[in-house]
Amino acid sequence: MTELADRFELSLPDGWRQQIPLSPLTNDVDRMQFVLGLAQWNINNKTGGPFAAAVFERQSGELISIGLNRVVPQFCSLAHAEAIAIALAQKSLATHDLSTAAKTGFELFASGQPCVQCFGMTWWSGLSRLVVGARSTDIEELTEFREGPLPDKWRQQLSDRQPLLPVEVEIDVCREEARSVLASYTNAGGLNYSPGLF
Amino acid sequence: MTELADRFELSLPDGWRQQIPLSPLTNDVDRMQFVLGLAQWNINNKTGGPFAAAVFERQSGELISIGLNRVVPQFCSLAHAEAIAIALAQKSLATHDLSTAAKTGFELFASGQPCVQCFGMTWWSGLSRLVVGARSTDIEELTEFREGPLPDKWRQQLSDRQPLLPVEVEIDVCREEARSVLASYTNAGGLNYSPGLF
Repeated sequence: MTELADRFELSLPDGWRQQIPLSPLTNDVDRMQFVLGLAQWNINNKTGGPFAAAVFERQSGELISIGLNRVVPQFCSLAHAEAIAIALAQKSLATHDLSTAAKTGFELFASGQPCVQCFGMTWWSGLSRLVVGARSTDIEELTEFREGPLPDKWRQQLSDRQPLLPVEVEIDVCREEARSVLASYTNAGGLNYSPGLF
Repeated sequence: MTELADRFELSLPDGWRQQIPLSPLTNDVDRMQFVLGLAQWNINNKTGGPFAAAVFERQSGELISIGLNRVVPQFCSLAHAEAIAIALAQKSLATHDLSTAAKTGFELFASGQPCVQCFGMTWWSGLSRLVVGARSTDIEELTEFREGPLPDKWRQQLSDRQPLLPVEVEIDVCREEARSVLASYTNAGGLNYSPGLF
């Protein structure tokens, strides 16, 4: 009989601290380039899929958490980059609802457009802004991943969702650089580890 | 400056082992009643929201993992019951893709219809069957929770999703008992802890 587990842990790979910038990143391009660097590092380091994310305090640009895709090495399909960034931010701020942690709010930068799982995680996180690099069409063009369904009008649903706090969405930030990161994963022989492929 | 975290852990509350049945649950009703008992225990125990889930090996009925909503006590909006059940099953079976772990496949029982986050988690899990108690309309009628958007035709999308393994979906299993569990949460003064409520 399978021994039942009662806890699981997800973590960043060793060496993550050396990737952290020493001063605040003051604009969207700097923040996205940092996140794309994390994704490239995860590829080169062979510590997960070609996706990264980070949570910032919006006004100050303070980095609150980073996330890397850890699905295969940590045996966990939940472990998308956005998931880890959100959970680590909530842990550091000691709340399940980031909207209660500071007046100016928090934003998630994601190297690629969130899949449906990460759309849902964004929905329940208390984040107030989502900034995206590559589009899902880029991901499907440049890698073997298939992104699955999203609710129709997903951007509009995030930005207009009574009675919950709206989430502003911005896409195509450093899109070309985000596409290059995805291409480098495929060029390095990176696998599509989606479940139940025939 | 916020200290960056590099790992987080989610866990079941103390006492979970005493809730586990001693012999296999051989049919859908028995499995769902067990899951509903877990949800009621989580309410009575004040260890999270009014939702529970479990993963079973389909043919043998062997229990692989349980999950309870742990959002508020563990400061984590990812910590829906389905999330914890899926992650614990994957940990025990040492794979991010449950479809590779055993020929007969695995099924997730959920006391309530998955929200969009848990729909996404089901999508990427490698599960091959999803069994649901209460409908989302029941949740919204009997509690203050609002379930958020799902992709149109979500059941059909799970059951027909080339190139991924199909996920069979069954709803309304022990629906009335599932509704009673939700009502008991509200009657006990259970809160809607959704993020960013105005």
